[in-house]
Formats: sequence, C-alpha cells, structure tokens
Amino acid sequence: MTDPVRIGLLGRGTVGDAFHRLLAERADAVETAAGRRPEVAGVLRRSEGDFDAILEASEIVVELIGGTEPAREYVLRALRAGRHVVTANKQLIAQFGDELFDAARESGVQLRFEAAVAGVVPVIRVIQESLAATEITKVFGIVNGTTNFILTEMANTGASYTDALRRAQELGYAEADPSDDVGGADAAAKMAILARLAFGAPVALADVSYAGITEIQPDDIAYAKEFGLSLKLLGVAERRDGGISVRVFPCFLYAHHPLAPIEGPFNAVMVEAPTITEITMSGPGAGGVETASAVLGDVVSILSGRAPVHVAGESLEIVSDISSAFYLHLEVADRPGVLAQVADVLGRNEVSVRSVVQRGLGDEARLVMVMHEGRESSFFASLAEIGGLEFVRAQPRAIRVIEEEFV
Amino acid sequence: MTDPVRIGLLGRGTVGDAFHRLLAERADAVETAAGRRPEVAGVLRRSEGDFDAILEASEIVVELIGGTEPAREYVLRALRAGRHVVTANKQLIAQFGDELFDAARESGVQLRFEAAVAGVVPVIRVIQESLAATEITKVFGIVNGTTNFILTEMANTGASYTDALRRAQELGYAEADPSDDVGGADAAAKMAILARLAFGAPVALADVSYAGITEIQPDDIAYAKEFGLSLKLLGVAERRDGGISVRVFPCFLYAHHPLAPIEGPFNAVMVEAPTITEITMSGPGAGGVETASAVLGDVVSILSGRAPVHVAGESLEIVSDISSAFYLHLEVADRPGVLAQVADVLGRNEVSVRSVVQRGLGDEARLVMVMHEGRESSFFASLAEIGGLEFVRAQPRAIRVIEEEFV
Repeated sequence: MTDPVRIGLLGRGTVGDAFHRLLAERADAVETAAGRRPEVAGVLRRSEGDFDAILEASEIVVELIGGTEPAREYVLRALRAGRHVVTANKQLIAQFGDELFDAARESGVQLRFEAAVAGVVPVIRVIQESLAATEITKVFGIVNGTTNFILTEMANTGASYTDALRRAQELGYAEADPSDDVGGADAAAKMAILARLAFGAPVALADVSYAGITEIQPDDIAYAKEFGLSLKLLGVAERRDGGISVRVFPCFLYAHHPLAPIEGPFNAVMVEAPTITEITMSGPGAGGVETASAVLGDVVSILSGRAPVHVAGESLEIVSDISSAFYLHLEVADRPGVLAQVADVLGRNEVSVRSVVQRGLGDEARLVMVMHEGRESSFFASLAEIGGLEFVRAQPRAIRVIEEEFV
Repeated sequence: MTDPVRIGLLGRGTVGDAFHRLLAERADAVETAAGRRPEVAGVLRRSEGDFDAILEASEIVVELIGGTEPAREYVLRALRAGRHVVTANKQLIAQFGDELFDAARESGVQLRFEAAVAGVVPVIRVIQESLAATEITKVFGIVNGTTNFILTEMANTGASYTDALRRAQELGYAEADPSDDVGGADAAAKMAILARLAFGAPVALADVSYAGITEIQPDDIAYAKEFGLSLKLLGVAERRDGGISVRVFPCFLYAHHPLAPIEGPFNAVMVEAPTITEITMSGPGAGGVETASAVLGDVVSILSGRAPVHVAGESLEIVSDISSAFYLHLEVADRPGVLAQVADVLGRNEVSVRSVVQRGLGDEARLVMVMHEGRESSFFASLAEIGGLEFVRAQPRAIRVIEEEFV
C-alpha cells in the first residue's frame, strides 16, 4: 500500500466546495486510476488556515482563490518549494504565465490549469498532449458561457441586451458585476492562454484585442437571421501573414458552421491544423461541479506522470490589419440614390458586397448588408466615409462575419 | 543532448507511409515537446524487414499492420520485451484487450491506441486521463465515417444505399469490401473499446449487439425529415438498470441533438457523467495523415510520462431489454380502420405513439409513426402482431429514435 497524496486547498468558494466534496466522493476512483489515495492536507480561506503550514503538509497545491494576488504569490511559492500546482485561474496564467512556467520548470514540478480556459472541455490537454507535435494554425471558439447565454436569450426571445443580462444573473450565469464577461476581458485572457500553448509563443494579455457584446441591438440579431446568421462572441487565435492574430469579437456565423448550434452557457473550441483538419470540442463552460471535475482530472494526471511544461519559443509578430467579412447596419433616409451612394463608397474602397436587405419604415429606412472578406482597414475607411454621408441618420453598426462555410 | 528515441514501424499501408513522413517532418517538434528526437529504427512490411531485428533496435513499436494476426503476436512480443506500443488497430484491442493490457502492466510499459477508435478525435485520452476519476454514465456517438458519409449522401441527394456506397468507394471513404463498415462490425469493435475504458469493465466484442445500414431505404430518410429527424449509425454504451448496454444501430435524431449536424466522413463522440454534464468531440474519422497524427500524439505521450493502463474491474451485466423510441414504416391497404387497428395493437402492448403521418398512394398507403420511448420487448411484440395483420402489405420497417431533446 502506497502513501496517500496530500492536497492543500487554497480558497473555498463554489468551486472549492465542489472540489472538496468531489475529492471525497471519488477518492476510490482516484486511487484506482492513479495508484494513490487523495487526502486534504489543509484548507486556506480568508478566515482560516495558515499557508505555510498547508504548503509544508502538501504534495499538490490546488489554487481556487481566483484573481492575481495573493494567488500569484502562493502559487509561485508552492512551485518554488517543489509542489505541483493545479489552478483554475485564467488571469494568473494569462498575466504571469512566463514567471510561473519558469518556476515549474526550474523545480521540475507540474503546473496544470485545464479548468482555467473552457471549463470541462479538455482543450488544454488536447493541445498540450494530443497535438504537442502538431503545427496548429488556428484555435477559436466560444470561451465565455455568460455571453453565449445572453446572445442565445436575445436570439430566441427578442430580449434586449439588458433584459437578457438580468435573466443570466437570475439564473446564476452572470455575476452581479458582469463587466469582465460581457466586455470580452475574460475571453481575452483565455485566448491569450490558448494562443500561447497552440503557437508555442509568449503571448501577453496586451497582445489580445477584444470587444464585448454590450452594444449589440436586438434588431441586428433579427436582421442577421434573414441572412441565416447567428451571433456569437468568438475568440480567434490564428497564424496570419507570418505572425499571429489573437482577438475576441462578436461575430455572425452561417448556419452550417460547427459553432452555430452551440447555445446557452456552453463553450466550444475548434483547433485546426493541416494534419488533423479540425477537432471541435464542446461542453458546459462553467458550473461548480464541472470546474471541480476538470481540476480533479488535473490532479489525477499529476499523479500519473510528467506533464508538458510550456516553453515559449520565439515571439511571433502580432498582425493587426487582417481580413474579415462584415455585417453593416445603416439607418438612412428613405429616398432614391441612397443604396447607390453607399455602394459607391464601398466600391472605391474595394469592399465587396455579398447581400443586401433594404426596408422602409415611414420616412426612414434600414439598409443591412453583408460584405465579403477583405482588409479590415479598407472596411473601416468605408465606414468612416459612410458615417459622414448626410442621409445616414445614426451611427452605422458593424459586426464581423465568419464567411467560411463548412460542409 | 539526450539519446534519440528509436521507433520500430510495423506495416506500410497508407497510414504507415503517412506516419513515416509525419515523423520526419515533425521531428523537431517532437524533440521540443518531449525532450527526445525520434528516429525510425526499422520498417517491417510484407516483403521486407525482420521483426526480431526491429524489436531489438526499438524503444517504441508502432503497429500499423491491422487485423489480428500477425499483429497480435508482434504486439504481445514487443510488450513482453519491455517495449512501449502504439497501435491504430481496433480489432486487436477489442478482441485481445485483456491479454494485451496484462502484458503491458506486467512489463511496466505503455500501450496506447488513440487512433483505433475515432481517428483524430482524442476520445481515448479524454476518457482515460481527463475523466479517469469520473463516473461516466454514457458514451455514444458516430464512430464510423464510412456509414456517416453514406447516410449523409442518401439524405442530401435522395440516392439509394447502393448508389451512395458506390460514391463513397469512388471517393475513397469506403473499401472495395465495405461489409465491416456498413454492417456495423467496425463500430461494434470501437464501442467495445470505449465501453471497457468508460466503465472499467471487461467488455468483449460478443457483448456488443450491432446492426448496420444496408437495409435503410431512401423513403425512410425522406419520411423522417417530415418529423425533423436525421439518420445516423450510432454506437451507444451506457449504464442501464445496474448493468451496461453496448449497441450499434441506425437511429433517428431530432434536429437539436448535438450529433444531428455531424455530416460526411466525420466522427463525433459524446461522454456523459453527472459531474461534467456532457462533453462532445468531433473531427475527421479517418484519413492517412489524420490517423498518423493521432499515432504521433501517442508517441509524444509515451515520451512524456506514464500512461494509464486499463484495469478491468468487476464484470457488469449486459442488459438486453432496454427502453427505446422507434420509427415505424408500414405499407398498408388504403381503407378505413387501418390506423385504428394498428393503434389498438400498440395500445394493448403499452407502446405510446408520438406522431403519425398517413399518405395514400393509389390503392395502397404508407403509415409512418414515431413512438415514445418504451421497453423494446413491448415494441417488438407489437411489431410481430402488426406484421401479421392482413392489410399490411410488406415487412414493417422499424428504426430507433433518440427522443431526448437537447437545449
């Protein structure tokens, strides 16, 4: 009979409690899978516990405090003291990844963080292990369940953004202060982690450009339905023009896109490479027991062997002016020549139109267009010019569209 | 600088060639990921190479011969000689799993087989590693790309089974002798492997009941479209009534089911457990470079650490009379009272009807029904009785339906 493995638990929120319970319930299963039985060596919470004593008594430290301090200090000290660490903390990995990976490498210990990115969806393991020797060209998907719930609610019920957010809060899918989720910062941190692992490059949080969903209007979603489009907040990390691009933005998808059917508080990530075509993975993005389950998977993996420790290779240049397709919504005066003038601006800027819907509403009209893919700089130049036309009655609204069609 | 890792390659078909090329192309990446550079120690093919010499020179043996002999003998000898083994051979694992796992455990070496089940979709790794301590309740999905291509072709073009099969053969998605794929035996072997790993129980190939797609008629697919249903060949392994059920059968899915949009030669697997809700994974089911890529992922994993070796726990009883919903297609005489008599038989057998379409065609008619879920034995008893009614003009056709609706 081997010694039990002693686990120090930092933090006792919803996920901490769920993990504590799950560890007790599945102790037999962990022992069968990994050869050693887990035991809690101590729990640190705001009002209780002593970090030094817990560190001393633990072989693996599980960090579920969240935020950057004191989580960063504790995790660094644990790694430097030769303890394996499992964390669900995306900000920690996105902001201090280099420092933490270095510490893990120097001490010869494992740092695992599956729960930090896509909840129960095992995207970290698949990228770091199944695809370790694969040249990944693109990782993208829905990595924030709160915004996906809100957008699904808006699409299915016609609710405003504000009402859909309130519903998400009532159901526990959004926090009282939802700004990190709805503004895109949460997804940006996750995409920085995915880009770093997929491309083997040091990607900082500041390299990720992001936008959220707070400006989305119900009628954008309604118009887009006429083109067969549904709206998602996407994170996209891809190799482009010899560099990389890592972005988070609201985006329309055609019905056949594998991410189009992902609804509610689910996450889904696609990985593309020439040698695998594509892998799509989806599942619940959060939830106490689901996150705890991902943490437990990491604990079992630590007991079962060595883990890949991320090494950043050369820096890759961040490419900013990439190609995108756009949806454009204009409120215009309802009179002849309007479409011609808008089309002229687009044409001069080499922006190509894919489809148009025009609809009169008394003396004003809506002009809704979907463009083909082209340089973003060309599109934004047209947009500035169109916004200045005298018959345009409100700020034009533009949303990206993923044009590729999947079979 | 560490020693290179020497790899013995058994078999040189499409996958063997693709693996050989990929290993050379990605040697740098393997070295970065795993710390050691791969080298081919020797290649065994029908006309060339000596197994003993290759075994002697190798640290990892990659078996891509296929079939059971001599693959089984070579793999057993390699494991017993202390070599790690990677194989893409589903029949080998499904039929001789116990013997092979025992040999790996006794020698303290790894036996990996990601490519044996769902091509590039990393379902083995996720079940054995991410979910090692999770009580999986159900694993199911589309694990044969050939049949999924044929069913997609029939649905999209109205082609007959024979014509769709010919098209699959022209495109290289079906072999000259397609019987293992279209008859369900290939999917049955894969489901035996998945059930064994998911439930930690010794599941033999003979425990898997299976049916294929050779009897599917284009009009079944057309009628089912009216109910919003699409047809897939599903493998389902689940805990039921204290035992397990492992089956392969053609099956209709409602449009919102996560597997409904999986088209063409793709595979997709869903895993369910209370602590994860569900994970869905999809990707190309076969293809030389994709399979080679899964094999390479296993090689990197061997170099990176220990692997879980499957241990079969207690045998679980195979449950046979489970609950299912059915689609039923009847050719009947077009006269009053027919629906009443059919409904009476179903009612007496406690089979509940969910929807009905009746359509006259001259003096004969089609009666197409979808039932609610109920005991299969009750449904089959009704079916026998209905088949004997004098106005039923052809053998009734019954196909299972997955009734659960996903949000």
